[in-house]
Amino acid sequence: CTLDLVNIESVSRNEAALAQAVTSLTEPIAPSVVHDDSLFFAPARRPGVPLVVFAGHLDTVPPQDNLPGRIDDGSVHGLGASDMKGALAVMVEMIRWLERDDPDTSLDCGFLFFAREELPIDASPITGLLEATPELRDASLVVIMEPTANAIQLGCLGNLNADVTYRGASSHSARPWLGDNAIHGAISGLQKVAGTTAREVTVDGLGFYEVVNVTGIDGGIARNIIPDEVVCHLNFRYAPNRMPDEAEAELRSLIAGDATLSVIGNASPGRVATDNDLVERLRAASDAALEPKQSWTNVAEFTAVGIDAVNFGPGAPEYAHRADEQVSIDALAASFGALQRFVLGTQ
Amino acid sequence: CTLDLVNIESVSRNEAALAQAVTSLTEPIAPSVVHDDSLFFAPARRPGVPLVVFAGHLDTVPPQDNLPGRIDDGSVHGLGASDMKGALAVMVEMIRWLERDDPDTSLDCGFLFFAREELPIDASPITGLLEATPELRDASLVVIMEPTANAIQLGCLGNLNADVTYRGASSHSARPWLGDNAIHGAISGLQKVAGTTAREVTVDGLGFYEVVNVTGIDGGIARNIIPDEVVCHLNFRYAPNRMPDEAEAELRSLIAGDATLSVIGNASPGRVATDNDLVERLRAASDAALEPKQSWTNVAEFTAVGIDAVNFGPGAPEYAHRADEQVSIDALAASFGALQRFVLGTQ
Repeated sequence: CTLDLVNIESVSRNEAALAQAVTSLTEPIAPSVVHDDSLFFAPARRPGVPLVVFAGHLDTVPPQDNLPGRIDDGSVHGLGASDMKGALAVMVEMIRWLERDDPDTSLDCGFLFFAREELPIDASPITGLLEATPELRDASLVVIMEPTANAIQLGCLGNLNADVTYRGASSHSARPWLGDNAIHGAISGLQKVAGTTAREVTVDGLGFYEVVNVTGIDGGIARNIIPDEVVCHLNFRYAPNRMPDEAEAELRSLIAGDATLSVIGNASPGRVATDNDLVERLRAASDAALEPKQSWTNVAEFTAVGIDAVNFGPGAPEYAHRADEQVSIDALAASFGALQRFVLGTQ
Repeated sequence: CTLDLVNIESVSRNEAALAQAVTSLTEPIAPSVVHDDSLFFAPARRPGVPLVVFAGHLDTVPPQDNLPGRIDDGSVHGLGASDMKGALAVMVEMIRWLERDDPDTSLDCGFLFFAREELPIDASPITGLLEATPELRDASLVVIMEPTANAIQLGCLGNLNADVTYRGASSHSARPWLGDNAIHGAISGLQKVAGTTAREVTVDGLGFYEVVNVTGIDGGIARNIIPDEVVCHLNFRYAPNRMPDEAEAELRSLIAGDATLSVIGNASPGRVATDNDLVERLRAASDAALEPKQSWTNVAEFTAVGIDAVNFGPGAPEYAHRADEQVSIDALAASFGALQRFVLGTQ
């Protein structure tokens, strides 16, 4: 059913038709919570049995002439195939299998289909869903089925964006000593940032890379005027063992000269949940590699409220957001099989 | 008549009414050449008598609530009073005095009122005027009556503008090693430029300051993307003893890293005419200081074709282009008296 889901256009903020399709495909099981364009299928709970929630986002980035999709050469091609309608199809098949076969699982299984993942973090519905859905907060592990090529990617980087402004004073460019060149201030002051290389930080045996970059710069009045201001965008991706305020202090320490730093956003990193028994069970069931997540994902939103989460999904990361987006049918089958073994407690 | 000239609005490309007013004020002497919104008053030439041309621009920068003007506290206030309608009034009074008194001058005196000085060099009419006006090319000295507070400012700086572009490759900002940060390239590559201080270069006993500045910078795609390009505006003001191509080579030598340099404009410096006897005569007649011109002026356009030129005028440079622009009546009188003694050959 991956191709059917691909063919329902669901660019961010346009997820309603796809949510309706998921509801139709999973009948007679109905979502227990419908909230903010998102669906949560909660299981009947059994005492002493841990709850695992499989989660995937309904939205995609905008199309790039890749709709409708097609099946070709063992793969489903089309918008969202990798990120992450293949994963949604695996979730739908899991719901159907649990309903149809009523297998003797060792885990209670919830399923969350949520909206607006491809928008900036402010648009994420996760915090609201956690408030509106007490059952969700009981999860012992959330498996976010982002494209990982069926590896288990743990934790996630923190993401700090800041504007750094250097100020000076304008003057005629033939007499710069009457002014103070703000761009020269930035060039001198950002030497350390420009000179840094990726720093490996090992957390629970996984190597994350902390990186800091100037991702934007803008300053100047006219070619013959000493510039009085330049604004620089800094982006700092930091390892899961650092708190957001520590990250801000670290960024400040890299900036020299008379600059003002204004934080635009600081998304917490996600905890590396290697100490959660269910992660080892998922690894054993999937025979997957344990890898660090070298970017930010919704894992951080769950671990921030004390719910362990990891990334695991069938999509190949290298095809996400591309015009030739695709997911192999073998990967879908491998993912489904791994999740079956995981919830059954077999290997 | 300075106030009358101030009150005729003549922002660049709107000089016609002011040119007409100059023609009326100088009657019965008529300009011998009217070309490209500019006027040239050529004298009857006498064998063996050198020609000196007094030159001033008719245009001003846009008004800043400083029209109409007024006379107050010994100064004429209003748009262009300093730059350079006070000087135009001195030129008009010189034409009238020469006509009325027919003094026994030791110099033939021409007067050039020209347009569009306050626009970029491309708009300057000087090259066209030199072609259209053979009499002008006979000048032994051109006195450009820009505001110098009655000092003699010799030569002028060259003015090189260039775009310097650093290129890299974009990637996700959490994995910068897959890309190449162009802004980091610029920050590293422009260290030498940002670290330079003014370098004094003595030419014929006058100290000019060579200065190089980044006057603009612009780069970046989004906060979470490694930037693939940044464009930097560089401005190099260079001493009169350097040729334009040497200046370009010098600028290139200051730039490190993998950058492409594109010259936007390279205005030659003006020759320092201390070896011209008429300059010493002007100095003696005006009791003026000899100073370097620490910017670019039309002097360069005359010296480029082998005509010596200097800057000398009544306006105070610090009031040019300001809302409170003004020129003192004492300075106007001092300028007029100095020019009378200069052309009479007295001290």
